[in-house]
Amino acid sequence: MKKQELVSQIRAKKSYLCVGLDTDLKKIPAHLHSHANPVLEFNRQIIKATAPYTVAYKINTAFYEWMGPKGWEIMEETLKLIPQGIFTIADAKRGDIGNTSAMYARTFFDTMNFDSVTVAPYMGHDSVKPFLEFTDKWTILLGLTSNEGSNDFQHLQSAEKPLYQHVMETAQTWGTPDNLMFVVGATRTAQLQHVRQIVPDNFLLVPGVGAQGGSLADVSQYGINGDVGLLVNSSRAVIYASSGEDFAEKAREEAQKVQNEMAAWL
Amino acid sequence: MKKQELVSQIRAKKSYLCVGLDTDLKKIPAHLHSHANPVLEFNRQIIKATAPYTVAYKINTAFYEWMGPKGWEIMEETLKLIPQGIFTIADAKRGDIGNTSAMYARTFFDTMNFDSVTVAPYMGHDSVKPFLEFTDKWTILLGLTSNEGSNDFQHLQSAEKPLYQHVMETAQTWGTPDNLMFVVGATRTAQLQHVRQIVPDNFLLVPGVGAQGGSLADVSQYGINGDVGLLVNSSRAVIYASSGEDFAEKAREEAQKVQNEMAAWL
Repeated sequence: MKKQELVSQIRAKKSYLCVGLDTDLKKIPAHLHSHANPVLEFNRQIIKATAPYTVAYKINTAFYEWMGPKGWEIMEETLKLIPQGIFTIADAKRGDIGNTSAMYARTFFDTMNFDSVTVAPYMGHDSVKPFLEFTDKWTILLGLTSNEGSNDFQHLQSAEKPLYQHVMETAQTWGTPDNLMFVVGATRTAQLQHVRQIVPDNFLLVPGVGAQGGSLADVSQYGINGDVGLLVNSSRAVIYASSGEDFAEKAREEAQKVQNEMAAWL
Repeated sequence: MKKQELVSQIRAKKSYLCVGLDTDLKKIPAHLHSHANPVLEFNRQIIKATAPYTVAYKINTAFYEWMGPKGWEIMEETLKLIPQGIFTIADAKRGDIGNTSAMYARTFFDTMNFDSVTVAPYMGHDSVKPFLEFTDKWTILLGLTSNEGSNDFQHLQSAEKPLYQHVMETAQTWGTPDNLMFVVGATRTAQLQHVRQIVPDNFLLVPGVGAQGGSLADVSQYGINGDVGLLVNSSRAVIYASSGEDFAEKAREEAQKVQNEMAAWL
């Protein structure tokens, strides 16, 4: 998907909501367990209910891989359920030496036809560039994450800059705002202004609004740029809004609520 | 697998060779393509030929994921072909927030029963500890890698130490030499002495001997500790030693040659 298509969709829907399909067999409503494929049925109903308010779906590969081959089938089937025009993210955090990263890129862009994949930066340029070589696909590089452990290394100062700044500045020499986004944690809103100075033009994928505790207002205030430039993810707060038979309806309500807040920022 | 079992196997076989099953459908001998499952048949013959000289097999998940569900089946089938007692590594470079890393750990340790998995450090302690919580399993954390891109961030100096040193020092507060190894690139032999000062007691997984250009002598001289403490990986140099019908025999010869060199260091 080209950037212009993504931006147009955001403006048309007045939403920059990404719904994370972190579908956990233990957390889905009990009544779904009578289905032949409970995870897929859950995803089907969640996607159907939330699609009008959503511009992106993020599939967290970990939640599917533990099921083995069956889990990979469910990922493929879930992708087919996502309406044309909605941006798709493989949240896979891959990254390895060049020939191996090229295989991962092939996995998510060719075999599975995701629009984007999340990538870890530790191994440097030759671990990231194979993802950037795919036309009309996106690399979403870890910048500043929202978890506690982000304090261990991402804030280490080198030449008076934190590691995350080195990562984001250097990565801008590898890709462009047309094929490179960054993961930036929403629980670090004080740093969002700083991030926007470093990467004024790139889209940011912001996880952590909702269950992880970030504030949509802060993220929007400091994160929005001329192309909107934000995809704000909510996983658990939307998909597990109810554990009853009304889970899809409650997910729809939650997605609509977030979209309403977002509309006010656009 | 407990450390003592791994060390005993190394001493019994006089080998610290790990064979990397980076099996690429495009590179396996032509005659195998008539098999129903060429990749699995290739792995079967490679494992049978090299097992006497090998203490570990490393499955690079990227080379299987691109095939989708079928690739995950082949990984599972390949694991079953590895003789009991040989250490198994899922070279997956995973790492995410805690609940997601826990799912990855479950994938590789429970669903697939690997002995170990490679993990990326960028997201810090809560992305790594879920892997360390599994008894008798191993986390192999990226320390100093062998690729060109390792220069981008791993050598950044902070408080007069390179990032890889921060990673390896900090990670030692999370795990012990009984459940934590590090990936250290063989093409950086000048730095192996430094790495051994930082982590005197941990096993090192050293990729890059062979096709990536590292020297086994340098790695052995500076890397071996009281428990041997090394697993030296060779992928392409062993498994693609020949592209003809004699590929398994040539792989055996190459593995034996490396094992012979290793025996001299033990």
